[in-house]
Amino acid sequence: MAVGVADIGLIGLAVMGENLVLNMESHGYTVAVFNRTTSRVDEFVGGRAKGKNIIGCHTVRELVAALKKPRRVMMMVKAGAAVDQVIAEVAPLLEPGDILIDGGNTHYADTTRRTREMKARGLLYIGTGVSGGEEGALRGPSIMPGGDPAAWPHVKPIFQAIAAKAPDGTPCCDWVGDEGAGHYVKMVHNGIEYGDLQLIGESYHLLRALLGLDASALHDVFARWNQGPLDSYLIEITRDIFAYRDPETGRPLVDLILDAAGQKGTGKWTVASALDLTVPLTLIAEAVFARALSAQKEQRVAASQVLRGPEVRFTGDRQRFIDDVEMALYASKIVSYAQGFALMSAMAKESGWSINSGAVALMWRGGCIIRSVFLGKIKEAFDRNPVLTSLLVDPFFADELHRCQAGWRRTVAAGVANGIPVPAFSAALAYFDGYRSAWLPANLLQAQRDYFGAHTYERVDRPRGQFFHTNWTGRGGTTASTTYNV
Amino acid sequence: MAVGVADIGLIGLAVMGENLVLNMESHGYTVAVFNRTTSRVDEFVGGRAKGKNIIGCHTVRELVAALKKPRRVMMMVKAGAAVDQVIAEVAPLLEPGDILIDGGNTHYADTTRRTREMKARGLLYIGTGVSGGEEGALRGPSIMPGGDPAAWPHVKPIFQAIAAKAPDGTPCCDWVGDEGAGHYVKMVHNGIEYGDLQLIGESYHLLRALLGLDASALHDVFARWNQGPLDSYLIEITRDIFAYRDPETGRPLVDLILDAAGQKGTGKWTVASALDLTVPLTLIAEAVFARALSAQKEQRVAASQVLRGPEVRFTGDRQRFIDDVEMALYASKIVSYAQGFALMSAMAKESGWSINSGAVALMWRGGCIIRSVFLGKIKEAFDRNPVLTSLLVDPFFADELHRCQAGWRRTVAAGVANGIPVPAFSAALAYFDGYRSAWLPANLLQAQRDYFGAHTYERVDRPRGQFFHTNWTGRGGTTASTTYNV
Repeated sequence: MAVGVADIGLIGLAVMGENLVLNMESHGYTVAVFNRTTSRVDEFVGGRAKGKNIIGCHTVRELVAALKKPRRVMMMVKAGAAVDQVIAEVAPLLEPGDILIDGGNTHYADTTRRTREMKARGLLYIGTGVSGGEEGALRGPSIMPGGDPAAWPHVKPIFQAIAAKAPDGTPCCDWVGDEGAGHYVKMVHNGIEYGDLQLIGESYHLLRALLGLDASALHDVFARWNQGPLDSYLIEITRDIFAYRDPETGRPLVDLILDAAGQKGTGKWTVASALDLTVPLTLIAEAVFARALSAQKEQRVAASQVLRGPEVRFTGDRQRFIDDVEMALYASKIVSYAQGFALMSAMAKESGWSINSGAVALMWRGGCIIRSVFLGKIKEAFDRNPVLTSLLVDPFFADELHRCQAGWRRTVAAGVANGIPVPAFSAALAYFDGYRSAWLPANLLQAQRDYFGAHTYERVDRPRGQFFHTNWTGRGGTTASTTYNV
Repeated sequence: MAVGVADIGLIGLAVMGENLVLNMESHGYTVAVFNRTTSRVDEFVGGRAKGKNIIGCHTVRELVAALKKPRRVMMMVKAGAAVDQVIAEVAPLLEPGDILIDGGNTHYADTTRRTREMKARGLLYIGTGVSGGEEGALRGPSIMPGGDPAAWPHVKPIFQAIAAKAPDGTPCCDWVGDEGAGHYVKMVHNGIEYGDLQLIGESYHLLRALLGLDASALHDVFARWNQGPLDSYLIEITRDIFAYRDPETGRPLVDLILDAAGQKGTGKWTVASALDLTVPLTLIAEAVFARALSAQKEQRVAASQVLRGPEVRFTGDRQRFIDDVEMALYASKIVSYAQGFALMSAMAKESGWSINSGAVALMWRGGCIIRSVFLGKIKEAFDRNPVLTSLLVDPFFADELHRCQAGWRRTVAAGVANGIPVPAFSAALAYFDGYRSAWLPANLLQAQRDYFGAHTYERVDRPRGQFFHTNWTGRGGTTASTTYNV
């Protein structure tokens, strides 16, 4: 039995765990591994880990014994109760100053709680986002650690070694902030990923339904888009997916896949947090709900027999329309990221964390699922103005929005006229038009709320903070509402 | 001191509480009242309650003593900790079989918890939605009680007496279901109210910005709409608000109200529940976020200096456009209610409550803020088919959607082309177009998720429930994901 030789221990050998282990080992670290179903340990050690500095352990005690001090134990297990269970097993075997890391997709509030609990026991806790999927885990993920700042120096060398590197060589891993800040940022990353995927889906839908593009033509479109401002991992894999043929039938595999999307929760969490913080996050909300609607396949098939739409008919220049869709995708993406970064700022303010928006953009620049050239532009925007209120008013992005808006509007109009749903494109456009409106019709809303609920209102001809109530009917009471909530 | 004479006691004399008391008294009930700030009790008893069978109490003990048995105590206090505090004071003074009622805008989960806690003490707990604002509370609200079914016979006579009556005389109050069901239905009611108000706001915005209609012209439009399928309380008060002039300046008061909307939480709760249950509730989500955006007044004013939109220009027939907007409002409203009723069904299924959708429509038919002729049509739809999956496929509503969709599409297109935000109109249309699509582009999404996260997919040429994983790059592992969540 190996004692005190491993640099880090990893618990949980699903695909992400395995690949992280191989990544660490390839950077010169010795890794001890454990998995509850121990046959998996044996399979791994006798398979992909064969001949490498990877130590298979059949018990947690064995894993802990294998580690150098201060011990570093990383958990890659299912978020939720499983993490608490592993902590309950591992923590008693650790000594003050040892480091416990959760690399799963944990809800940030759990990480905040666990950071505090472990601190009370003298242990240094980290909750870290890890993005990049199985490929990223193996070749260099984006890593977003938060928790106890005293833990950071102990994991920084390993994490920055295995992390992706931005084009300028900077590791896509830096300290995010206190408590659950790392998992919060990862959650927003995932929410943004939902948005990006939805935007690609709407582009695909329009190009397929309106122009009749097949997988091969779509491959060409995405290949071209990947050379412009949309250059990114998700556009790249979309390009490749359209080229992939089912080995069995020879047909494009994408055409054989069922159109019912799954989701595992981080998108919902992001929207729920936005609701809590009263931050408009409309695009990601639409993306989450669009997945939900896609999953109602049977209802949709039944409804398609009852509900009719307009005739789908394209007239006009095909290449111009493809360019319009590209602009719609790009402009909507700017809106989505503006909403996401506004959400992180609001959360940081609410929690007393300091989240550096520019650093987050840099961490996402490489390695993670949403990595893109675009994130470099966002980094530059926050370099220009670290306290930028919204990406939409950064000079670069404002110019891009102005450049794209005509094509964006034509794209949404085409969806609307032809009955092709573009919920995220439209939500983004409505937000853009609302955000740039000095006036919105909420004066009427305040009048209505005061009418039926005595909620009071402010006046444009009086200072903010002075509230008025009108007895609109001449019949209601004069008591302003303190109980009734709308 | 009055002992054993009052039919019911009410704690909390804000506007809703006062008006409910006056309503009960006017139906022949003697009501004991208490308020923490006891000067309010005196003001009320010496003012609006003067000469009526209303007994002012300065302590909770006095209030409880004043009641006939089994005692009925209704709380109209701020939702949250205040309710638990009042319960902690009142419950020890009650006897088994007494009834405790929360008529505030409590979160349904709290009501579920309290119903169980009180049951354990032998007390019968009710959490009831009360809608109608101050006017409704006084003249007949919609009342949506849920909780311990054994409590219902004890409050049914009072509640049905004071409730609004539908045009056919049926009281807008019936038993909703177990535990938090009453507050859940009230919450969804409020969410739908957010949606209705947002739709009216978008109509107002378009008519004002595109056609240049002033308050007086808008009054006429809403007066006409109130005679058609949109006939409802909210259209009616909108009509009246446009006619109301500021006594000081003589100008339409609505023009002097600040366009920054407030919100107190029930809209957010509704959307959060929809996220939990994976039910698309896009229209209400947009309405909640639109309020949030309106509240960012300073940011909007600043952004309006930076971001440019298209020229706002109307060409075409003005009356036809007004009619188009009416159709957009009506069709979007159908979508919103379809989403809301689908949410209630999902929650009932999840919680093992039985919520009768037709009965809910009837309860909302009168008294509450969203009361309308439209809800009578919804009642009829559920009479035709009590297990209707979606209002959208009911024959009546499907016809209405078909009739309205061209105008609806032109309305959204006008907003899109002219830079006038119509987030709820567009969200509704996107949902309609998505719901009636047998195919949606989620096949690509499943391919992408499988590509980067090994999430697996189903195939159109294989039975549902069979999951496939492709090694898209030829480089990734063959291990399907069990940990990584997107």
